[in-house]
Amino acid sequence: MKKVSFAEMRCSLARSLEIIGDWWSPLIIRDIYLGLVRFDDIALNLGISRNLLTLRLRHLVEGGVIKRTAYQKRPVRFDYQLTEAGEELVPILLALTAWGDHWAQPEEGQPIRFLHKPCGCKLMPKITCSACGKTVAASDVTALPGPGGAARAGTMVLAKRLAQAARA
Amino acid sequence: MKKVSFAEMRCSLARSLEIIGDWWSPLIIRDIYLGLVRFDDIALNLGISRNLLTLRLRHLVEGGVIKRTAYQKRPVRFDYQLTEAGEELVPILLALTAWGDHWAQPEEGQPIRFLHKPCGCKLMPKITCSACGKTVAASDVTALPGPGGAARAGTMVLAKRLAQAARA
Repeated sequence: MKKVSFAEMRCSLARSLEIIGDWWSPLIIRDIYLGLVRFDDIALNLGISRNLLTLRLRHLVEGGVIKRTAYQKRPVRFDYQLTEAGEELVPILLALTAWGDHWAQPEEGQPIRFLHKPCGCKLMPKITCSACGKTVAASDVTALPGPGGAARAGTMVLAKRLAQAARA
Repeated sequence: MKKVSFAEMRCSLARSLEIIGDWWSPLIIRDIYLGLVRFDDIALNLGISRNLLTLRLRHLVEGGVIKRTAYQKRPVRFDYQLTEAGEELVPILLALTAWGDHWAQPEEGQPIRFLHKPCGCKLMPKITCSACGKTVAASDVTALPGPGGAARAGTMVLAKRLAQAARA
């Protein structure tokens, strides 16, 4: 089904999606984060086919987002843990979950509540600027061409537009 | 290819992914955000087939993330804009892009640079807690069952585990 490899795109969003951007991967990462670290539990939890889950887990291991560890020797059995890169994805997925709570919540209410342990409050993730600390709004951001930008699939038109805008 | 509808899952991450979670949708949202608002520009930019782009745009309109406006009457021509829900996705996609800059950057460097206009600094999005303002780390968050939680595809095992953990 996939015709273009996102890994070759000159766009860090596309390259992130190459690693985690199919329908299932963010849910698999969430499951592992929340302690469902074994194949059978993840398969049952998500209702995903075993074949597809095998492929997705392998892809996430290759992408450096999760790692596989043997927790039993005879017969050998594995479980999964997030890597550092995987852990850094979690707050982003929590922000996306909060977006879903707001814009796509089931009638029955929020399915999972998250608490922020350091302050004990209900977690409402907010995306802020590391430099000034202000909340980042879509309208507050300007895009400029970066050193790795190129006019190819993913940024075919955009790379030129950004370069023009930067010159203007 | 899709066997389970994410829209029915009792999980706000799954429901977000139902709206924006295929390979192309986040890139389409990024394109519209960055000013590529016409069908032909998006198709050319991403190298996506026109059929698939038509489907993706329709799905994003139905999901309330983008809206279609006629910018010309004879012949009628449309362009796309983000809705409020779509604009609220942008900081999350910028955070994912920054993750990709860090963990999946092309050798040539960052493809697009983002500036935070209010402070003029390079944008490094940080996910913080709305209540206490601290940076949110994966290890600082606890999950509890919510009112809309249910043991069904997406949270089949998780709903029970969360309920057990909350009782303990």
